[in-house]
Amino acid sequence: MKKVKYGLSALGLAIGMAATGVSMSVSAAEPTLSEADFEKAQLHYFQRCAGCHGVLRKGATGKNLEPKNMLKKGQKRLEKIISLGTEGGMNNFDDLFSKKEIANLATFIQMTPPVPPEMSLEQMRSHTKEFVAPKDYPTKPLHGLNWKNFFVVIERDAGTAAIVDGDTKKVIAHIDTGYAVHVIKGTEHHKIDHAKDVGRFWYTIGRDGKVNKIDLWQTPEKMLVAETKMAYDARDIAVSGDGKYVIAGGYWPAHFVIMDAVTLNPLKVVTTRGYNTKGEYVKEARVAAVYTSPNKSEFTVAVKETGQMLQVDYSDLDNLTITSIASSEFLHDGFYDPSGRYFQIAANASNKMVIVDTETGKLEAQIDVDSLPHPGPGANWIDEKCGPVGGTTHLGTGLVSVWGNDPIGHPDNAWKMCYEVETDGAGAFIRTHETSQYVWADQLKHPEPEIQQSVQVFDKKTREIVKTIRVTTEPGKAALHMEFNNDGSEVWVSVWNRKDAKNPTGEIVVYDAKSLKELYRIKGLTTPTGKFNVYNRMNHKT
Amino acid sequence: MKKVKYGLSALGLAIGMAATGVSMSVSAAEPTLSEADFEKAQLHYFQRCAGCHGVLRKGATGKNLEPKNMLKKGQKRLEKIISLGTEGGMNNFDDLFSKKEIANLATFIQMTPPVPPEMSLEQMRSHTKEFVAPKDYPTKPLHGLNWKNFFVVIERDAGTAAIVDGDTKKVIAHIDTGYAVHVIKGTEHHKIDHAKDVGRFWYTIGRDGKVNKIDLWQTPEKMLVAETKMAYDARDIAVSGDGKYVIAGGYWPAHFVIMDAVTLNPLKVVTTRGYNTKGEYVKEARVAAVYTSPNKSEFTVAVKETGQMLQVDYSDLDNLTITSIASSEFLHDGFYDPSGRYFQIAANASNKMVIVDTETGKLEAQIDVDSLPHPGPGANWIDEKCGPVGGTTHLGTGLVSVWGNDPIGHPDNAWKMCYEVETDGAGAFIRTHETSQYVWADQLKHPEPEIQQSVQVFDKKTREIVKTIRVTTEPGKAALHMEFNNDGSEVWVSVWNRKDAKNPTGEIVVYDAKSLKELYRIKGLTTPTGKFNVYNRMNHKT
Repeated sequence: MKKVKYGLSALGLAIGMAATGVSMSVSAAEPTLSEADFEKAQLHYFQRCAGCHGVLRKGATGKNLEPKNMLKKGQKRLEKIISLGTEGGMNNFDDLFSKKEIANLATFIQMTPPVPPEMSLEQMRSHTKEFVAPKDYPTKPLHGLNWKNFFVVIERDAGTAAIVDGDTKKVIAHIDTGYAVHVIKGTEHHKIDHAKDVGRFWYTIGRDGKVNKIDLWQTPEKMLVAETKMAYDARDIAVSGDGKYVIAGGYWPAHFVIMDAVTLNPLKVVTTRGYNTKGEYVKEARVAAVYTSPNKSEFTVAVKETGQMLQVDYSDLDNLTITSIASSEFLHDGFYDPSGRYFQIAANASNKMVIVDTETGKLEAQIDVDSLPHPGPGANWIDEKCGPVGGTTHLGTGLVSVWGNDPIGHPDNAWKMCYEVETDGAGAFIRTHETSQYVWADQLKHPEPEIQQSVQVFDKKTREIVKTIRVTTEPGKAALHMEFNNDGSEVWVSVWNRKDAKNPTGEIVVYDAKSLKELYRIKGLTTPTGKFNVYNRMNHKT
Repeated sequence: MKKVKYGLSALGLAIGMAATGVSMSVSAAEPTLSEADFEKAQLHYFQRCAGCHGVLRKGATGKNLEPKNMLKKGQKRLEKIISLGTEGGMNNFDDLFSKKEIANLATFIQMTPPVPPEMSLEQMRSHTKEFVAPKDYPTKPLHGLNWKNFFVVIERDAGTAAIVDGDTKKVIAHIDTGYAVHVIKGTEHHKIDHAKDVGRFWYTIGRDGKVNKIDLWQTPEKMLVAETKMAYDARDIAVSGDGKYVIAGGYWPAHFVIMDAVTLNPLKVVTTRGYNTKGEYVKEARVAAVYTSPNKSEFTVAVKETGQMLQVDYSDLDNLTITSIASSEFLHDGFYDPSGRYFQIAANASNKMVIVDTETGKLEAQIDVDSLPHPGPGANWIDEKCGPVGGTTHLGTGLVSVWGNDPIGHPDNAWKMCYEVETDGAGAFIRTHETSQYVWADQLKHPEPEIQQSVQVFDKKTREIVKTIRVTTEPGKAALHMEFNNDGSEVWVSVWNRKDAKNPTGEIVVYDAKSLKELYRIKGLTTPTGKFNVYNRMNHKT
């Protein structure tokens, strides 16, 4: 065993040091893998485990998986956990990985975590590609379709985005994107900045950090107009109110990158590594989410492991002003209230909704909710008693929590729990529309197929569940994520083909928003996930 | 040879990657040291080398000393360089270290650099000590002396601060501080904030990150009132305009810490790791300097390796707003112009003076100067032709550069070179006073004792050197750092006893500011370095 250790005497240490130095040790007791198996286990870990546990395995939504803890559990116990999952929220992987792959993963997490490399601005820039020159962009839509009712749909396991015409329900394009795109965002109407051609350009972010730009005015085969890469692992993206900048957040390296929205050329990179709310340094301080403030020239950046909400003023990138608002770990996903002033975000492992006042740049409130809140796109509506409210589903329990979110009009109810609705299963997404009397919640995280394949709908007035809709009955499929069409008359629900994830056997099921009856099934989609109606996303209200 | 490597496939890498992964390798070819020799070499490296080369040895003011480069040079060549120095600016160490110590240092830098540990807010707080309870602080000075003409003097190699009475020239106290204190600062008059008892409390920062608080109203034996530790390696400190907060900057960990100025309890820690102006990630991004803006509730933090000037608004620590102004690497030391609006700082390895406009929070200008500018406390005065000007000495050459610094009154001369004065040797410190017709520059960096022991004085009107003053003729001693007394009638110059650094054989020589004749020698000081006259520092004008 060879040790390289930082001696304490050199640092003039005397008292109160918990850590007695950093050791990099390569122990003879550490299990080993062949180079090929190591590479493969590392890839599997990156694709399926790192999201919750981190590449350095310090833990976040999932537990700490550092060797010191894993060696104690041992090979057999680890294989069992990976195969079957746990009651604590760990998924089973026996349907995705072979026995050998699971054994290798169990060995891999007993070995020292490899540290991925950094990525410089120059390296990012080397990935920037132009497929259509900006001077050749059309001056009006070339396809004669009602593009403002297009749905931009993530096809997760295909690494593509589908463009679906909301009027005809036709899939008009499958566009190459990064791996397992998490979010796609377009320009929105903004209070003070004014993007040209709002809703026309859309930006995808892959799990692999690849950024793609889509022009909805192009003919389908030319819609992909530019590409770059801003990290090795990433989750979210947003466009500035003026449409000039795109921001994307990295999981590794832990940073955000601001790009030219025309060319996608990376302009500025800022690390998010830093101290959590307890004052402990976090190297893997991942950007969980980025958003554009509807009322200010600011991006909102949520740093998962540090619990810091960053308000990033994009009006001067060379002299960049950022307000770091200390809230709670581990920040995940959020949404603005209808006024655009308050940002509501889940600190999921803290079981809190964090509220930021973007007008003052200060923490407004923290609301205790239940296990692992996860609102996805979120939902805002008017409650008869509480006034304006927001709501979230939970990854850890079948519950929708609803809180008042109008501190000016309804100060007594603001940031307090208004009511809760129990659902049959834990879910990831909630959605409504200003014209709808209903709120929809999925139950993606429930282990029973019957519940996982059903979404539940409750009435804004009675606060009661009025319908449970079984979206699919096919084995290995799950229902998730709702989106309304442009006029709020339809609700689109995704059906994941989890067991057959590489083939276009997923679908979107369209329901009548009033009668709640099924209208259409849009076939030929591969693991359709998040979907974004152009008109609704341009005009964020709910 | 055991390798732990991050495979590229897991990261979805295809093109344009310069680094092909990070390897932690322990090579059989790497030279070794016994544990005792390693610890000692590490300590010597930390004390004498890390300042210029970095603990991770990436280089800054000094060259990169990573094993890949050092192994090429080999043991004998490295021993020679450490012993004798180089023409490139590397000091000789044969007078400080034995042959065996030099051999061990040469071996040490061929080995993998040990990474020092992080430090959490809780660890810092465990070092906080109260020697005098704030409730027991006196309500008026207890010693009947003219404390506003005290000089607070760094006794570098003793780890103490001397308090010298400027009226009587008596050393009234030696106060225990951290190791090799770099800077001591007190409260100053501020345009909008108002500290109580301005000039009374002084704060020291040791190279070991130890922070001490001195109360000049106390009797000498009780002047040390509180202590804490905010890093393992640190360089600068400042007090907020309202006297409520102390900020100190760390070399390792690379962060700044804001403390309660009454108790010294650490309140907030912010990392300075991040991207340099080329967009490359820097782990060892050290805080070279911290200052208080005279006109705003802001600290100015200079990050050496990233070239970022941070304007830190201290009015709300929980929702902390920072503007990062991208300038040039490697930032070192600076000073405000007399209006308090413009901050002038050396980016020394870029041979530039960087000017920040604190009113707008933007980069104002960058002025090309000569090799390694280093102003120390700096000097501002009025030039007959250019109007208000600032000046700097250079570590790399015997030259004082003088530039216009009044963009409102003298826009044609602002941030342009006004004139240069050649001196006999490279120096570290320049100083003047509003009542003085002269500017003083030391020549600390010149290898010849005769020049290193002399300071030069030039006339503001004629721009010519009028006198070269040999401050000491004793072997192994050097002259450095000038400070005026309260009314500007005296200039105090330090004499370092470099060869006998553990004993009180250093001195301060006091000159008549008009006749330039020697008046006194204040004896009994150990390596006196920076010194700060209370009245002058309360009323920053020059």
